Amino acid sequence: MVHTTANRGHHPLSVAPWPYGRRPGGRLPLFAFACWLAALLCLPAAQAEDGHDLWLRHAPVESGAAGDYRARLVQLVAPEATATQRVARDELLRGLGGLLGASPAVSNAPDRDGALILGTPASSPRIAKLGLDLDGLGAEGYLIRSLSVDGHTATVVAANSDVGALYGAFHLLRLLQTRQPIDALDLRTSPKVALRVLNHWDNLDRHVERGYAGQSIWDWHRLPDWLDPRYTDYARANASIGINGTVLNNVNANAQILTPAYLEKVEALAGVMRPYGIRVYLSARFSAPMEIGGLKTADPKDAAVQRWWRAKADEIYAKIPDFGGFLVKANSEGQPGPQDFGRSHADGANMLADAVAPHGGIVMWRAFVYSDEEPDDRAKQAYTEFVPHDGEFRDNVLVQVKNGAIDFQPREPFHPLFGAMPKTPLMMEFQITKEYLGFATHLVYLGPMWEEVLRADTYAKGEGSTVAKVVDGSLEADEPGRSRLSGMAGVANIGSDRDWSGSHFDQANWYAYGRLAWDPYLDARDIAAEWVRMTFSNDPAFVDPVVGMMMASHQAAVDYMTPLGLHHLMGRGHHYGPAPWVEGGPRADWTSVYFHRATKEGIGFDRTKTGSDAVSQYAPPVAEVFNDPARVPEDFLLWFHHRGWTDRVSSGRTLWDELVHRYSRGVAEVQEMRATWDGLADHVDPERHHQVARFLAIQQKEAQWWRDASIAYFQTFSGLPLPEGEAAPLHSLDYYKSLEFPNAPGDGR
Amino acid sequence: MVHTTANRGHHPLSVAPWPYGRRPGGRLPLFAFACWLAALLCLPAAQAEDGHDLWLRHAPVESGAAGDYRARLVQLVAPEATATQRVARDELLRGLGGLLGASPAVSNAPDRDGALILGTPASSPRIAKLGLDLDGLGAEGYLIRSLSVDGHTATVVAANSDVGALYGAFHLLRLLQTRQPIDALDLRTSPKVALRVLNHWDNLDRHVERGYAGQSIWDWHRLPDWLDPRYTDYARANASIGINGTVLNNVNANAQILTPAYLEKVEALAGVMRPYGIRVYLSARFSAPMEIGGLKTADPKDAAVQRWWRAKADEIYAKIPDFGGFLVKANSEGQPGPQDFGRSHADGANMLADAVAPHGGIVMWRAFVYSDEEPDDRAKQAYTEFVPHDGEFRDNVLVQVKNGAIDFQPREPFHPLFGAMPKTPLMMEFQITKEYLGFATHLVYLGPMWEEVLRADTYAKGEGSTVAKVVDGSLEADEPGRSRLSGMAGVANIGSDRDWSGSHFDQANWYAYGRLAWDPYLDARDIAAEWVRMTFSNDPAFVDPVVGMMMASHQAAVDYMTPLGLHHLMGRGHHYGPAPWVEGGPRADWTSVYFHRATKEGIGFDRTKTGSDAVSQYAPPVAEVFNDPARVPEDFLLWFHHRGWTDRVSSGRTLWDELVHRYSRGVAEVQEMRATWDGLADHVDPERHHQVARFLAIQQKEAQWWRDASIAYFQTFSGLPLPEGEAAPLHSLDYYKSLEFPNAPGDGR
Repeated sequence: MVHTTANRGHHPLSVAPWPYGRRPGGRLPLFAFACWLAALLCLPAAQAEDGHDLWLRHAPVESGAAGDYRARLVQLVAPEATATQRVARDELLRGLGGLLGASPAVSNAPDRDGALILGTPASSPRIAKLGLDLDGLGAEGYLIRSLSVDGHTATVVAANSDVGALYGAFHLLRLLQTRQPIDALDLRTSPKVALRVLNHWDNLDRHVERGYAGQSIWDWHRLPDWLDPRYTDYARANASIGINGTVLNNVNANAQILTPAYLEKVEALAGVMRPYGIRVYLSARFSAPMEIGGLKTADPKDAAVQRWWRAKADEIYAKIPDFGGFLVKANSEGQPGPQDFGRSHADGANMLADAVAPHGGIVMWRAFVYSDEEPDDRAKQAYTEFVPHDGEFRDNVLVQVKNGAIDFQPREPFHPLFGAMPKTPLMMEFQITKEYLGFATHLVYLGPMWEEVLRADTYAKGEGSTVAKVVDGSLEADEPGRSRLSGMAGVANIGSDRDWSGSHFDQANWYAYGRLAWDPYLDARDIAAEWVRMTFSNDPAFVDPVVGMMMASHQAAVDYMTPLGLHHLMGRGHHYGPAPWVEGGPRADWTSVYFHRATKEGIGFDRTKTGSDAVSQYAPPVAEVFNDPARVPEDFLLWFHHRGWTDRVSSGRTLWDELVHRYSRGVAEVQEMRATWDGLADHVDPERHHQVARFLAIQQKEAQWWRDASIAYFQTFSGLPLPEGEAAPLHSLDYYKSLEFPNAPGDGR
Repeated sequence: MVHTTANRGHHPLSVAPWPYGRRPGGRLPLFAFACWLAALLCLPAAQAEDGHDLWLRHAPVESGAAGDYRARLVQLVAPEATATQRVARDELLRGLGGLLGASPAVSNAPDRDGALILGTPASSPRIAKLGLDLDGLGAEGYLIRSLSVDGHTATVVAANSDVGALYGAFHLLRLLQTRQPIDALDLRTSPKVALRVLNHWDNLDRHVERGYAGQSIWDWHRLPDWLDPRYTDYARANASIGINGTVLNNVNANAQILTPAYLEKVEALAGVMRPYGIRVYLSARFSAPMEIGGLKTADPKDAAVQRWWRAKADEIYAKIPDFGGFLVKANSEGQPGPQDFGRSHADGANMLADAVAPHGGIVMWRAFVYSDEEPDDRAKQAYTEFVPHDGEFRDNVLVQVKNGAIDFQPREPFHPLFGAMPKTPLMMEFQITKEYLGFATHLVYLGPMWEEVLRADTYAKGEGSTVAKVVDGSLEADEPGRSRLSGMAGVANIGSDRDWSGSHFDQANWYAYGRLAWDPYLDARDIAAEWVRMTFSNDPAFVDPVVGMMMASHQAAVDYMTPLGLHHLMGRGHHYGPAPWVEGGPRADWTSVYFHRATKEGIGFDRTKTGSDAVSQYAPPVAEVFNDPARVPEDFLLWFHHRGWTDRVSSGRTLWDELVHRYSRGVAEVQEMRATWDGLADHVDPERHHQVARFLAIQQKEAQWWRDASIAYFQTFSGLPLPEGEAAPLHSLDYYKSLEFPNAPGDGR
């Protein structure tokens, strides 16, 4: 790359490292060899750390630990008959080469201490002979065990499939990257969720809806003839965290993706993903039969329409035998759907399901629906529309449900559909891209938010009926005839930016999503620590404070954006920055005032039994709590209740004072994060430290903006003074209202 | 980065180079040091060659030559008092560190043989004492000379300004990069053109009109708080080839760029560019006073409008004291302009010129204009509109003229305005981005096309009145009161893609533009060789064939797209692929049929005296030649003449046969280029070789497409069979007409 470090004042010698001042000349041949080596490598060595490595950064292990690892990984015994086997083998050689300075010797059989034996009973006679207990690992699980093989110490990575072995290989590398001991390994794991899928809201012109990391990584124009190496990088990164599916195009779908010219391109991408165990899926536009099929209708009960979709599925599977299936956003926000023809969501989903069923495909049908007319409470509609159809969906259909009932707000109570459709597999939809959480510049680690939802108790089958159990299917496994499918979807934050996600810390959200999709019961803090160690450093003096920052970051964002259960207060359209004053326009529920309902008397959306009664969509024990202003978690107070400005909250403060207090607390937390990060400069390369520091500065500025604009606005209702010691907003309310951002990224064009 | 080489079958050990198989352990401390060094550096060493280095790739010089260079560059004596001085010093330390394995020692005075002394008489007492002849070098020129200083051999790089010294530093590095001897240097150079400017057709939402290299590199949303290191990389690359100005936004301008919020962002970018001698300019929307100024008119004669622009200029210069000025596209393709208010281009340009004059700013006023109604011949309009105003423009105005009269077609005769406005500085506008030349995937080196135009003889002041002399001002320097300004503009092909230009070879067009802007008399082949050596390799076995490919590539593209002077036959809107059948729509001159005029009898646009008489816009000696079908260069035959299908051309073939012959010749040349490149795999890294090979495959496929679609279409007019041995088109004309590319990149949204 073109080096820029010198422009940040680093001594240029750091670019051409020469440990001993002037070159010693050729007096010492070995020394000269070192010089030559240094010279040869010095230019690449100067490569700035730009985050492109992600968590697959195999920086050399410090010598102490490296020695122990090397002794255990002297040689590699791994099959290479299939593409996936070669990928697993190459990952180990490359990863260990980076971590340990040299790759292990490749051998057909373990003939010394320190063998690493990888494979399946089918691919490796060695593994077969060991008679390991692989039952229960399923197709994707694996075990890693320290054993004695032929009298030699060995580390065995075994699975029932090549992909399982590949996952195991990545896990072994992770153990080294996080400096875990590997001398007495005995671990086995398999994914708790079957479908672990990324949703790309990528348009065919490479614009990414709600994307803050450049363009779509899919270079449709140059496909299928040019396969950007990034596609392979993408597959490796996803396989390393167990993601096994990707929906290539936006749920606001363009029917062109289903034309032959584009299916050729999709086929090429599927070929890149296949060795990594990743299936490609497509978002299907429900009206495609009319738009590209020349039919007069897209009625799912129409025989011609059914024939068209079956033929289209046959056409796709002829090119892509392992095509995953369709994702559909229907009758939502103006998208076409079965209701346009007087049919139900089940009618539409089943019609598509029947088309892909012969090929083993599935349909992911989104429950994010609300009518085009003004609803009494948008939060209630998905439940109202879908619960009646529980049990009507085909076995190869999943209903994809966002974590909350509105739309990926900074914090939402779990969606009432979880636990309410026992006969239907509900797929969790998380948003990895930070549409409502500060775009790419705010450091907001989403692990705690997702953990909160997954651990929420629906009480659907009594206490302990967590959302995680609904998602992995364990809660309702006994429902007669229930499909065995389970899934989790993450709306990707991946783009063409060098660092993939638009910022270094947003990579952690991609990583955390993958790990939680594999095991929804994992701990968000553990995941954060794992990621920090792989991405930056294993030094506890760095890991601990950074994990602390990450764990505190979500609450901070909620505090400076939408405290106490407030929601949907962002700028119209682009969703950038605060705009609680947004009103009017095409739909009431696309405004801010619809959601905060502030008056001279108070603020909040009354969803109690005497209000919109959204609470009654939850199981009784939950409904009671949410319905009671004294028992509802304070973080959701104004989500469910309209409260008076001077009502007291748990802190003893009035609601108004608490609101201001939380806004300020959020800003203070960001300031704290900045101070922490500034103190860690010695532990991280200057390039990444500088960018994170600059982004934290932007976050603090914008947190202040959120606080000040929101307080200035809500004060016009409360009419109350700011609590003692609280600074007045920096600008007038008119100033904040006057700000416009016509070119903010990620709009939904 | 995440390595992908293994997926192309390279042995993973290549990623962690280990020269001696198993690591030798710690037996030899020095050896171990080498191991440690290798291990430490091995990961970055594996960085794939992705083209991000551009021509600033300072790969180690092979040992032989390196020794000679080192002896001459033992120590560096360079000032570091100013930002530009520090940049020059750091460039030398970094560049020499990469090329020679270690940077020279920094010293305040030359005290041994092999000193490199850089600076100006003002910045360096050492330089001042040498009493060098710096007169005539101007503000940006420099000299490089091998001298004896204080009894030591020294290399002196001296200039009259810090930026001149910076240019000299880059030149010295180029000498090493291209393996020139440096033991007896005595060279002096200064730019022949004053303003060497890039035009970015970049919109504020990061869409780049006619951009094929990702998004705009300007991340407006995160400016001014986040300064992407790419901005500095960009400034370094441009300074290294002498570019001293950049217009940040699209000529189809958005007035928002002139609002305070955006000017803050522009100020931040100007701060990055300043040390590199690059001024920022903005495209000004003529109607801005109405759109963001709240005025009722933008009439240049209106006092309020004049006041508004003066105030706006004052506001800009208060932030950016060295702001360059405005570029304006007025009354062209629907853009607002002075004619909307009954005023002339001179009225409009002068009004803006008066606003920036007090601050030393300039105005670049584009001559690319044609009326919104159907013209008799679009080629004539710029001349008709501008020539009458010669002499009316202020001293700080340049009229920016495209190389040809239509619009950057694969080949155009030089624009008739060159030589026709002696009292006005005409700025050459070249298009670096390949809007009409195959986007980023076709290998088309534009050096020969630009050279052809610059060397064209206008005969304006008799033989030898070349376009280059018009552009550098030398031809008309004696015109009384003529402005001393001169300039060249290049429409950038730079984007957010890792390789900057969308392909490795498109970097050569950026490079060649810069070199020709510095000296329009340079040889395109020499520039190509220079670039190949700096970018890839100095091995003659590689340089010679690759330069050969590059030099043949433009004629090849002309042949397979628009042979014999045909033009404007591309797809509508996006301009991708062949579409000679385009007709109808809003404007006749936005169709293909308007330009090729094919009939049963013949083909070509009659611009002779008996036709549109465009020929008469050229000086008589040129007009006579262009007017005569027997004397007009055959490459422009159908540009100026409508000829019969069976008329004979110089080859003895009929026009129809020659047309088919040239289409096929173009395809064959691309095939030849592929074969040449395939044979060079051993001379270039696998990453870049692979991408170029894939792009050449796309180019061959699309060249065939151009040939077949064009022949199939024109045959419907000629009604003639294909010549003996010519293959029939692969598909039917209907098939080619049916192709649609709604998502092709770079559209003019």
